[in-house]
Amino acid sequence: MSDFVRHDRNRVRRGHKRATYDRDTVYAILDSHFLCHVGFEMDGQPHIIPTSHWREGNRLYWHGSSASRMIRHLAAGNPACVTVTQLDGLVLARSAFSTSVNYRSAVCYGTPGLVEDDAEFDRQMKLFFDRLAPGRWEQLRPMTDQERKATSMLVMEIDDAAAKVRATGPGDGEEADWPVWAGHVPLHTVQSVPVPAPEGARAPLDHPLMPAYGWRAETA
Amino acid sequence: MSDFVRHDRNRVRRGHKRATYDRDTVYAILDSHFLCHVGFEMDGQPHIIPTSHWREGNRLYWHGSSASRMIRHLAAGNPACVTVTQLDGLVLARSAFSTSVNYRSAVCYGTPGLVEDDAEFDRQMKLFFDRLAPGRWEQLRPMTDQERKATSMLVMEIDDAAAKVRATGPGDGEEADWPVWAGHVPLHTVQSVPVPAPEGARAPLDHPLMPAYGWRAETA
Repeated sequence: MSDFVRHDRNRVRRGHKRATYDRDTVYAILDSHFLCHVGFEMDGQPHIIPTSHWREGNRLYWHGSSASRMIRHLAAGNPACVTVTQLDGLVLARSAFSTSVNYRSAVCYGTPGLVEDDAEFDRQMKLFFDRLAPGRWEQLRPMTDQERKATSMLVMEIDDAAAKVRATGPGDGEEADWPVWAGHVPLHTVQSVPVPAPEGARAPLDHPLMPAYGWRAETA
Repeated sequence: MSDFVRHDRNRVRRGHKRATYDRDTVYAILDSHFLCHVGFEMDGQPHIIPTSHWREGNRLYWHGSSASRMIRHLAAGNPACVTVTQLDGLVLARSAFSTSVNYRSAVCYGTPGLVEDDAEFDRQMKLFFDRLAPGRWEQLRPMTDQERKATSMLVMEIDDAAAKVRATGPGDGEEADWPVWAGHVPLHTVQSVPVPAPEGARAPLDHPLMPAYGWRAETA
């Protein structure tokens, strides 16, 4: 696949050695989490709202209340920035200047639109649930017309994107004589033991939970 | 302390039962992580950059390269939105509509400015390091004039803010007869065993790492 083209809005200025425009890298970061941050601007004021996303091909999807300010504003044809960040660790160098973090981030630009077709809406919801808990979509109580009306789904073709990745120890090995510990502290996400609803569940947990994100599972 | 005042930009429209304008709640979320997302707008295009932040009183701080597009744009007097999000779990209800996530998020609005005083710059860097690794700032190789020149620190008085918190199981107990497992899957951050730099460290690790964030430590 070809790289994303470097335009003014997605060209990485600082730390460009950590930057990549490779589509597979951008897509892998987008797929590594279901938490993204959506940026938009209203009346000169920037806003950032965290929400859940998923991806199919070169398109990002997210959904929310049809009455949401973010959804309504973006459905009206305004540009968005969607960022997914994985913080992988703290890098402790011998100087403040070389202290850093290990991370993977993808920043995507585009102009979202509404998914208005019901069959496509359902197909996308199933894709999202298949990442969260494969097989669960078919087990859920189906959506009602009222719920569908209350939910809006946005799709954004990724017009421009860039990723940045840092994944090593401190970069100041030439100062290794300075008498302080140096290295890095990895951080990762752990998925704990599922907690059943207090009112009880009428069926056992027979689908895997969040296998797509590569998180470690904490066993009971 | 008084709540943040509800203005147009920070008033939560959707899920307002999960919203709070309580300063202690906003501050606790800001202090729960060192990863934030900074939003700004240039030429009609929203941008979101992940970076590290810290807080003192009603002010948020972050720093970066003096040549950073984000830093230069915000230092010029443009408004910002800074969001900190903790994803605490996936909430699996009996319907797609009630499926949700547990999270804590704080959205802050203000207009940043540069920290131009060297003594204040150093005092703030020490505050930041005291959260990352208490006692480490004093052990580091001191900043050089060149490094100081290459680093810009921003301070943002939090003019408006709002927090949203969801921290329970599925909200559709009235549908408990539907035959699918229901409950939630907690997610948390784990701090792994520190990895020494390959070139070796001239001193043992004698300061605690990231005690401020309440993350579980993974032991060797």
